[in-house]
Amino acid sequence: MNQPMRRMKSDTVTLAHGGGGKAMRDLIEDVFVSVFEPDGMEDQARLTSAALANSGAQLAFTTDGFVVSPLEFPGGDIGKIAVCGTVNDLAVGGAEPLWLSAAFIIEEGVDVALLRRVVASMREAADEANVRIVTGDTKVVERGSADGIFITTSGVGVIPPERNLSADRVQPGDVAIVNGVLGDHGAAILAARGDMALSVEIPSDCQPLNALMNATCETVDVRAARDATRGGLASALNEIAEAADCGIEIEETALPLRTEVKGVCEILGLDPLYLANEGTLVLFVPEEEAERALDAMRSTAAGKEAVIVGRATAAHPKRVVMQTSFGGARIVDMLVGEQLPRIC
Amino acid sequence: MNQPMRRMKSDTVTLAHGGGGKAMRDLIEDVFVSVFEPDGMEDQARLTSAALANSGAQLAFTTDGFVVSPLEFPGGDIGKIAVCGTVNDLAVGGAEPLWLSAAFIIEEGVDVALLRRVVASMREAADEANVRIVTGDTKVVERGSADGIFITTSGVGVIPPERNLSADRVQPGDVAIVNGVLGDHGAAILAARGDMALSVEIPSDCQPLNALMNATCETVDVRAARDATRGGLASALNEIAEAADCGIEIEETALPLRTEVKGVCEILGLDPLYLANEGTLVLFVPEEEAERALDAMRSTAAGKEAVIVGRATAAHPKRVVMQTSFGGARIVDMLVGEQLPRIC
Repeated sequence: MNQPMRRMKSDTVTLAHGGGGKAMRDLIEDVFVSVFEPDGMEDQARLTSAALANSGAQLAFTTDGFVVSPLEFPGGDIGKIAVCGTVNDLAVGGAEPLWLSAAFIIEEGVDVALLRRVVASMREAADEANVRIVTGDTKVVERGSADGIFITTSGVGVIPPERNLSADRVQPGDVAIVNGVLGDHGAAILAARGDMALSVEIPSDCQPLNALMNATCETVDVRAARDATRGGLASALNEIAEAADCGIEIEETALPLRTEVKGVCEILGLDPLYLANEGTLVLFVPEEEAERALDAMRSTAAGKEAVIVGRATAAHPKRVVMQTSFGGARIVDMLVGEQLPRIC
Repeated sequence: MNQPMRRMKSDTVTLAHGGGGKAMRDLIEDVFVSVFEPDGMEDQARLTSAALANSGAQLAFTTDGFVVSPLEFPGGDIGKIAVCGTVNDLAVGGAEPLWLSAAFIIEEGVDVALLRRVVASMREAADEANVRIVTGDTKVVERGSADGIFITTSGVGVIPPERNLSADRVQPGDVAIVNGVLGDHGAAILAARGDMALSVEIPSDCQPLNALMNATCETVDVRAARDATRGGLASALNEIAEAADCGIEIEETALPLRTEVKGVCEILGLDPLYLANEGTLVLFVPEEEAERALDAMRSTAAGKEAVIVGRATAAHPKRVVMQTSFGGARIVDMLVGEQLPRIC
């Protein structure tokens, strides 16, 4: 920028900051542009990438709104989730995430200091995921018309020509692998809300998964992957079972769970299979490639604790069944109703 | 889809519809997918376009949040604005809009019938603009944590190799043209809110501008264009004057204004230069191409009333000056503070 940077004059966000005039430009330049450092101040980003020109490459495009409450919690905040969530949506589809947009809906009266922390956290997560936040928008609504800060991110990435991840590619015999412990994010939010008077502090698993996905896709034939966000691993597996028209069996004893999360679930009667994750995925690979997939996953920061949790089966098509630790079997259905509002 | 379509069982949106489970899938399939008809149900869209592979083509990427109140008003609703706004952001940058995403944040208790009307309106606007809504997201927040429906759309388009619209290309002597009357959207929202007990019904100008932009760019060298949304024509012109480092002169008598809008402004002491538009733009072309530009604009539905309103000048760099109808001159500054919250 050739202009001297405009500075916010207020400690809280006011309706004027959404008005399209000088105050809005001050907010945008001081709080967003100075941190995200996009190439221009036009209302749209102009992007070029050699990856796009690859014959056979596909563009991937996704969006997610984030309304998590509280805005800050152990292991992350709404900004970190807003970046990781969209990066991960792209990654589990086989895309290499390149660019993000970020649209903020802010309640009048929000502390500018809080907004700055959230924005700094977004930049940090974007750097970790090696993506750029290239364009954005800000709206301000009257006190009481929103709850703090909502962020919608959209992401654009490129699916390399040879990659084809799709839930309907999963076949009986394929092995299901998760990259780490389950339910941390859901438990973290529950504990952070304080309603339950839980004395444990559980950090969210919120993290970008694109490096892990990339390493794995370059090593083995990943049939399909899903990040286990809202609705947890149970919903991710059910979606795959339905799309692939095959059954899925998982082993309760194989499910990686943090002791604290297990404890929270036991106390509150929650099922960790339905707890949300923000940095945990499940992927399916051919059985003969499972060991190589585990090695590839474990070579990345987000995959250190990768472990096989089950497999696809020709039995009970479209159903997910868990072999319990007591030797029985139970159907793991999709989540019905809501488990925990505003988890992400 | 091979599956029988899932149907909503409720007349209002509940927290369960944001929970990531069965209720959410019913909402998504019944209300969104059945209308938008995206190619797949994966969490991301996979896109190919011959336009992308054009050597020298650039990708354009933009986002906007929409929080307009009321949700429905003469001439449009939040859905129509959410599509037109993002289409127009892309179009005024010289891009041909191709794909949109739509992320909904919905307050618990919203009528499903209202949501269906908004979604139908989005589909209609997308069809008119010849773009596709290819991916989306839904979050539900508790009653009182949002105000009805917020929609964030993002858009991806392609800038053809030969096109280069940029505010800094505007030069002294260039002519400023608007495509139609000013301030209709702002006046429409003001009247629709009912606070002012205005008896007029003014329809919003909300419309897609991509066909107009495309026709004009194919005919003349459009230097730069801006849609005159929040902050109105005054803010759009000030942004261009600053980026181009030149002055802009406009003629008050040349500004196209609907009689009703002029009346509302006189009664309420508002300046139509600052009223928001949702289907009105200003573009700059070299003087010798002005007539051809007017012809090209007038050949499109959105440009029938295109008219020259002023020109760029070497005098008073970075300042917008209006020759008033009384023969004087006044500086038209950027909007300070907010004129009307939640206009879009």
